Amino acid sequence: MSTAKLKIAQKLKLKKYRDEFKLFVAEGLRLCEMANEIEFGFYTAEFLKNDRAKNFVEKVKTCATLYEIPAATFEKISDTKTPQGVMLIARQKFSTMEEILQKNLIVALDAVHDAGNLGTILRTSEAFSCGVVLLEDSADIFNPKVVRASMGAIFNLPVIKMTRTDFLSAMKNSNVEILAAALDSTAEIYYNHDFTEKTAVIFGSEAAGVSAEILNAAKKIYIPMTGRAESLNVATAAAIIISEINRKNPPVLKTKD
Amino acid sequence: MSTAKLKIAQKLKLKKYRDEFKLFVAEGLRLCEMANEIEFGFYTAEFLKNDRAKNFVEKVKTCATLYEIPAATFEKISDTKTPQGVMLIARQKFSTMEEILQKNLIVALDAVHDAGNLGTILRTSEAFSCGVVLLEDSADIFNPKVVRASMGAIFNLPVIKMTRTDFLSAMKNSNVEILAAALDSTAEIYYNHDFTEKTAVIFGSEAAGVSAEILNAAKKIYIPMTGRAESLNVATAAAIIISEINRKNPPVLKTKD
Repeated sequence: MSTAKLKIAQKLKLKKYRDEFKLFVAEGLRLCEMANEIEFGFYTAEFLKNDRAKNFVEKVKTCATLYEIPAATFEKISDTKTPQGVMLIARQKFSTMEEILQKNLIVALDAVHDAGNLGTILRTSEAFSCGVVLLEDSADIFNPKVVRASMGAIFNLPVIKMTRTDFLSAMKNSNVEILAAALDSTAEIYYNHDFTEKTAVIFGSEAAGVSAEILNAAKKIYIPMTGRAESLNVATAAAIIISEINRKNPPVLKTKD
Repeated sequence: MSTAKLKIAQKLKLKKYRDEFKLFVAEGLRLCEMANEIEFGFYTAEFLKNDRAKNFVEKVKTCATLYEIPAATFEKISDTKTPQGVMLIARQKFSTMEEILQKNLIVALDAVHDAGNLGTILRTSEAFSCGVVLLEDSADIFNPKVVRASMGAIFNLPVIKMTRTDFLSAMKNSNVEILAAALDSTAEIYYNHDFTEKTAVIFGSEAAGVSAEILNAAKKIYIPMTGRAESLNVATAAAIIISEINRKNPPVLKTKD
């Protein structure tokens, strides 16, 4: 029966249970089509209104149990105001530092709290083939708002959680250049940097910026602005810097040796 | 008395009344500190807990009426879950095409609906000294969510509303190069373009992209991606392209002649 599974889906709205069960929720057809590591899921009869939806449900049923539930029940477990009527429960997946280090560019997030910004940075990181390191105090990447803003990037992106201290030693041990985005008189304009080495770039929270522990170990880069704005949105700053590094040091497909 | 003013603040949650009164709402100290063209405002006794808040209220009172209201009343007119207790009502301001054309880079938005994305693009546009053109079917820039995501850019940014047809003729008449962000086999990689002319760049909705009317009149540029993502967030794409144009053709302070 689906009652126990419905209870799990309901509980996964809370970080506490996402951490305990090591599961998370993806909602909506577009996001669900990108999912992997699926445990189980739900859909409503109303969802099956077109071939794309029907084919999707048929396909997933070959590898995981999908429960058809009433629309009213779906609304209760849904995180959105107007649910499409399809939801998958997937296993949380983290990468190893070895996998992260296969990437030319490592994006580290230092206490990025806003779910929309975090999801957008994950989306950008996946689009530019980066690995992602979540440092202490960043938002949960399996929060439904982050998953939504990531547009499915969460399913394909190498991500690891680490302390600042462990992250800094790992980068130093592997000769990765450590850069931090910071508005600071000692910072270099981002596009003047050559980025030919393997690079880790750290973005901090909009309110507090990158933490002192990281700043002390990093070269600082900044984005020059000409208007009155004091700063850019953190996902905006990340996009500008990530795309520049990607352009100067494009990722190459690597074979394991 | 403040009752009539409270009714106006309440009504300004709806676009209909924002259009009718040509007013909009800014909430929170940081946003309010950037405001201009202030009509009136509200604060709570609880808001006056520090010198920055007290000084701000004193300063604004020299040019506009501020009403002290109970916290419970403030909550009713507030658009946020945990209001700070300060709100200003400001006049909507649009620029002329002449003012927009003084900018090196004109950012046009073609049916951008998402309030967060729209606000973030306004913030980026202000930071890089652009003028902004809102084409048909874009979200209301005076929506409280847009104002918040703009981080006050809305108060300093030249913005104009136009039809696509009028926009295209205005650009052609002034010899402005028209570029559209589009994932298309005929598009040029954005960083290969030289951007030495005065430029207008158009971003479309995430779902539908730039409209056919604009695409037919524009050169297409795109951002190459290396991951599995089909596209970038529209505010992300705008940041990458705006910062590149700004770097190749930096804005110069111009005196009126």
